[in-house]
Amino acid sequence: MASAGAETKKLGNDNDFVRLSNPHLATMKEDVLYHFSLSTGTHDFPAMFGDVKFVCVGGSPSRMKAFIEYVAVELGLDVPGADYPNICVGTDRYAMFKVGPVLSVSHGMGIPSIAIMLHELIKLLYHARCSGVTIIRIGTSGGIGLEPGSVVITRQAVDPCFKPEFEQVVLGKRVVRSTHLDELLMEELAQCSADLGEFPTVVGNTMCTLDFYEGQGRLDGALCSYAEKDKQEYLNAAHAAGIRNIEMESSVFAAMCNACGLRAAVVCVTLLNRLEGDQISSPHEVLVEYQQRPQRLVGHFIKKRLSAA
Amino acid sequence: MASAGAETKKLGNDNDFVRLSNPHLATMKEDVLYHFSLSTGTHDFPAMFGDVKFVCVGGSPSRMKAFIEYVAVELGLDVPGADYPNICVGTDRYAMFKVGPVLSVSHGMGIPSIAIMLHELIKLLYHARCSGVTIIRIGTSGGIGLEPGSVVITRQAVDPCFKPEFEQVVLGKRVVRSTHLDELLMEELAQCSADLGEFPTVVGNTMCTLDFYEGQGRLDGALCSYAEKDKQEYLNAAHAAGIRNIEMESSVFAAMCNACGLRAAVVCVTLLNRLEGDQISSPHEVLVEYQQRPQRLVGHFIKKRLSAA
Repeated sequence: MASAGAETKKLGNDNDFVRLSNPHLATMKEDVLYHFSLSTGTHDFPAMFGDVKFVCVGGSPSRMKAFIEYVAVELGLDVPGADYPNICVGTDRYAMFKVGPVLSVSHGMGIPSIAIMLHELIKLLYHARCSGVTIIRIGTSGGIGLEPGSVVITRQAVDPCFKPEFEQVVLGKRVVRSTHLDELLMEELAQCSADLGEFPTVVGNTMCTLDFYEGQGRLDGALCSYAEKDKQEYLNAAHAAGIRNIEMESSVFAAMCNACGLRAAVVCVTLLNRLEGDQISSPHEVLVEYQQRPQRLVGHFIKKRLSAA
Repeated sequence: MASAGAETKKLGNDNDFVRLSNPHLATMKEDVLYHFSLSTGTHDFPAMFGDVKFVCVGGSPSRMKAFIEYVAVELGLDVPGADYPNICVGTDRYAMFKVGPVLSVSHGMGIPSIAIMLHELIKLLYHARCSGVTIIRIGTSGGIGLEPGSVVITRQAVDPCFKPEFEQVVLGKRVVRSTHLDELLMEELAQCSADLGEFPTVVGNTMCTLDFYEGQGRLDGALCSYAEKDKQEYLNAAHAAGIRNIEMESSVFAAMCNACGLRAAVVCVTLLNRLEGDQISSPHEVLVEYQQRPQRLVGHFIKKRLSAA
């Protein structure tokens, strides 16, 4: 549970500028953020984004548009009839929306897709001279041993061998980075869910995989080379390792935010309990309501932070 | 160069049904293709897709819509004023369009995103009882030592260590699969480009990475832990290994199509020469024309195949 002191410390830290972990950027005259269709040569980043304090990211463009509409109402920043235009209108790779201090960005599915987005987002925040930024992934996931619709706030993002690491290949060599997430932010979000009391929420480890089917032990992909028994053993071992949900972006999200000094958290709803099945077959309207839960939690968090400022 | 005999062999092989590499599927009453928002319980797959012979996939939804419009005209299947509705209208994860025997599907960016799509696409083709299907990825890439705008037809999809392998983690264990692509199809496509004579085309190896920035040796990401010299050494070593372009989907595409008996090819345009820079900064209209090149090549290929049938 976060104390008021912890909140004040975070909010007050406006000299805490977003930093890059790349000495080469300083030598570039222009920076084209190709997958956003934005460039420092054609857009005034400080004017467009300088006031951003909260960045929320999620897979689906339409969900991230719904989030900005929701948060605008929550924060009393909406104007009747107002639309929130897609800032990345020149591309269909990602969608980006803004209201007040909140930026909402889609990242597609999987580690490579969110990594491209994060490289360009972190550079955007740097060029805009943003400070004191909190970034939260609001997503969907498969639960392990949880009632569907439960929300998981990630304690540690772990790999498919249950290690809190993100491994990537750089110039042909394996590099391993820490997936540490901000513990105070995690506790603050858990307190926000307790405030709301609207849906079950747990703090637990999140396994991040490169594949949705075989990579998560599903039996219903086009390829499957193991038996039901092997799958159950793997998922039970994951549960014993403190893993409560599985998704496809948290490890690189944690690693990159950590390397660039961004306070980061992961809040995902579980669409099914993987100990009981593989297919996501709940009715559409049930899944839609589930997907709103991380939005409601994070909307409440932002409102609470801003009212404490 | 493909002989008429080779073409006839491919086209005539209509008993060559799409197969799955998963014994569990046979026991399922319904199969929900969640990320397509389609299900065998609610959609008649044989009626909707049974006549599909060519599947073209690419990252961007709008590019795959443009492709179906282009190919409809090329094949004389367009009706003035006709629109091609998105078959996956219930989701924004992927977009899918169809005209006659051609299916066009977006796959987002990166191995995990295209893998989810391919699992569901291959199951779709299986449930629809499709036979004699050819699948081609038409994409964008970074070139190595080629004039920007050159098209690369992939001989071998290789990993960031230049090996023709796709490694994934299944139930916590590393599994390696072959990335073999269809050689006759590759030759047939090269002949199609020679027929057209509109842009430079080479056959070469394609390196598939999990990251666009550090993973491809770029100096302009939010993170970079190496020097210009290290980057040049890596890219030169890649060139010496026969690699002519770098993208983010070809290895899992080759591995999955190979495992499921689909004849597959990868045709990507190069948007820049990575030996000369990292940023994609050509004018928008130049990039748009480059992106049409794989579409024109594959459009010609489909037309030629159908007229030979």
